[in-house]
Amino acid sequence: MAIRPIALLTDFSLKDPYVGLMKGVIFSINPEAQVIDLCHNVAPQDVNHGALLLQASYHFFPSGTIFTVVVDPGVGTNRKVLCVETEKYFFLAPDNGILDPILQKEDVIKIVDVTDDRYFLPKISSTFHGRDIFAPVAAYISKGLPPQMLGSEIKSIQTLNLPVASFSNEELNGEIVIIDHFGNLITNVFPEMLKDNNLADFEKIRVIVDNSPLQGIYNTYGDKGIGEPLCLVGSSGMIEIAINNGSAAEHFKASKGTKVRFKY
Amino acid sequence: MAIRPIALLTDFSLKDPYVGLMKGVIFSINPEAQVIDLCHNVAPQDVNHGALLLQASYHFFPSGTIFTVVVDPGVGTNRKVLCVETEKYFFLAPDNGILDPILQKEDVIKIVDVTDDRYFLPKISSTFHGRDIFAPVAAYISKGLPPQMLGSEIKSIQTLNLPVASFSNEELNGEIVIIDHFGNLITNVFPEMLKDNNLADFEKIRVIVDNSPLQGIYNTYGDKGIGEPLCLVGSSGMIEIAINNGSAAEHFKASKGTKVRFKY
Amino acid sequence: MAIRPIALLTDFSLKDPYVGLMKGVIFSINPEAQVIDLCHNVAPQDVNHGALLLQASYHFFPSGTIFTVVVDPGVGTNRKVLCVETEKYFFLAPDNGILDPILQKEDVIKIVDVTDDRYFLPKISSTFHGRDIFAPVAAYISKGLPPQMLGSEIKSIQTLNLPVASFSNEELNGEIVIIDHFGNLITNVFPEMLKDNNLADFEKIRVIVDNSPLQGIYNTYGDKGIGEPLCLVGSSGMIEIAINNGSAAEHFKASKGTKVRFKY
Repeated sequence: MAIRPIALLTDFSLKDPYVGLMKGVIFSINPEAQVIDLCHNVAPQDVNHGALLLQASYHFFPSGTIFTVVVDPGVGTNRKVLCVETEKYFFLAPDNGILDPILQKEDVIKIVDVTDDRYFLPKISSTFHGRDIFAPVAAYISKGLPPQMLGSEIKSIQTLNLPVASFSNEELNGEIVIIDHFGNLITNVFPEMLKDNNLADFEKIRVIVDNSPLQGIYNTYGDKGIGEPLCLVGSSGMIEIAINNGSAAEHFKASKGTKVRFKY
Repeated sequence: MAIRPIALLTDFSLKDPYVGLMKGVIFSINPEAQVIDLCHNVAPQDVNHGALLLQASYHFFPSGTIFTVVVDPGVGTNRKVLCVETEKYFFLAPDNGILDPILQKEDVIKIVDVTDDRYFLPKISSTFHGRDIFAPVAAYISKGLPPQMLGSEIKSIQTLNLPVASFSNEELNGEIVIIDHFGNLITNVFPEMLKDNNLADFEKIRVIVDNSPLQGIYNTYGDKGIGEPLCLVGSSGMIEIAINNGSAAEHFKASKGTKVRFKY
Repeated sequence: MAIRPIALLTDFSLKDPYVGLMKGVIFSINPEAQVIDLCHNVAPQDVNHGALLLQASYHFFPSGTIFTVVVDPGVGTNRKVLCVETEKYFFLAPDNGILDPILQKEDVIKIVDVTDDRYFLPKISSTFHGRDIFAPVAAYISKGLPPQMLGSEIKSIQTLNLPVASFSNEELNGEIVIIDHFGNLITNVFPEMLKDNNLADFEKIRVIVDNSPLQGIYNTYGDKGIGEPLCLVGSSGMIEIAINNGSAAEHFKASKGTKVRFKY
């Protein structure tokens, strides 16, 4: 059987042993597991943030990867645990909408409501299903367990309301959805949205962050001088505002939710 | 031979290459090693913190795991390096009390004073035994080296004075010992302590954090509304104070050592 | 073929999925890859910092390691991508001087200007060559690809101007180049420099950090009492200023670039 790597995406950070504990459980069940840390710094309990990071990342992973996504503000309540199988991947996550963007893009083979506690730890806490449910289930899938063994098939999952850019008065109105380590301000605007709204000439576009205008959409940081702000198509495919060798977050005093307008 | 994974617990953080260097040394000696990061954010030189994290974590790891614990304020002095073999695990750590809670719980097969420098790096610094002693010794054990090859057997180790909750005036008096990434305030009180002190009715218990009282001990965050504080039995088995989808550390302005009282 | 591990050194931090994406790409190409995180907290775009960390670390890694160094302020411009093969290692990095100190120390077999896009991702962004170029190229090398397949051989690379300690008026004048997680202040002064400048008696040396003098150069933190500052030869081989069980960075209010003078 081909390797089924386990990619972990959580809001646990690495401050505590929580991620380490998930790995301890995984390797206890499958000593041959291959575990890849996708990211552990989803903002605490921020399902939208987790969904955005997953959506921008998953297609770079090997076929067969089991994405184990633990951003779980409803842990211990009656929210479901989902296992989604697509043509290429498995996704294991709480049913809180975090998988919604994936299901809109991928061909789904089946969605399973994970309930069979033979694949959980013997003792399940009410607050750490990452360790007690997600880690052991991921480990069993990595050993070849077919998702249908985990519970009943279901047809629909929770949806998510990600902020969507809107067009009015000849402007596309987006917002900042992610601020990265470098201080890049990543928006919810994709280049196709601009083209679809008659804003196809990237040199002519003015980008207004809060009240500061930038002229043009560029390709890379070095298209401007050191310390100069610019707008560009980022590596995630989303349009972002950056400073060449600097932090746009500091420069613009921007935060998640800050409006960004695109117009001629 | 079964895999003997190496689990790393240190206070190095990931800011510097220190953890990476330990791994470089381990893979130089055992290219097939399996290394699991348990946690690298023990508070700097805080042996108590390291002991608490280890104690709450180790039993989730595979049989044969070599816990390599480097919280080592006495590095370069004449403190011993210990290798403890139990029924299920190996523990490698400086002799500063960090293994004391483990030895009180586990059946110890032997304790070795690690002195044989054939299993160290050829050149040993005075300040980074994680790289020069702990990493290579862990790598050799992971290849099957029996602990008794590392030095002489000894009978006792340094003890540790962890803060213990005490009962007086019909109150159990504990304190906050860990604050996690989510701002959960983890105390040194276990549910059994309450039961042993005639505080078995969890609904009736009042929990006083500093001077703020909370009513009842719950099972999970969602037992209260969003933003509401509550007391619950945490995933480590210790009682903790949390805010549903928020940070109790911010809400209570609490810190390590803050007193927490339990009474009817 | 022996394992060729991939050691990652970047300025990405672990806040975002950038490192996870590099690993996703690597394992997509080589499911058997062995990836070691050397460090991901090089200061953003700080080529000097990356060069110092690499230089102090690489020789602790297994023979055959592919050091994949992504500190890349010129990403998307016409800076080259280099693959350097030495007797023992491979180094993959942007041509911005970050490999200069290595080339001054190691016997170089060849330097290749990496241009063959058959070994890149099919679609290359202008801002994330770590994912689109460095990761896939590292993965192919880890599978055995000889560096000469990646492009043409070249003879020289960009150089780097690291701050160098200088001797005048019977003083050696160095500076702080790294501040670590523990607050240790690591200088650009090596013990040999002191010996070469008639400052061989370490007990007699006075070390002046900004305007605070320290007497003597010691071996380890415990040579002084708890909370006391001292100067010692650090684990990287460079001389550093530390506080036994404390933070010299806080004590001295020092920062990168702060001058440190050594004299009798």
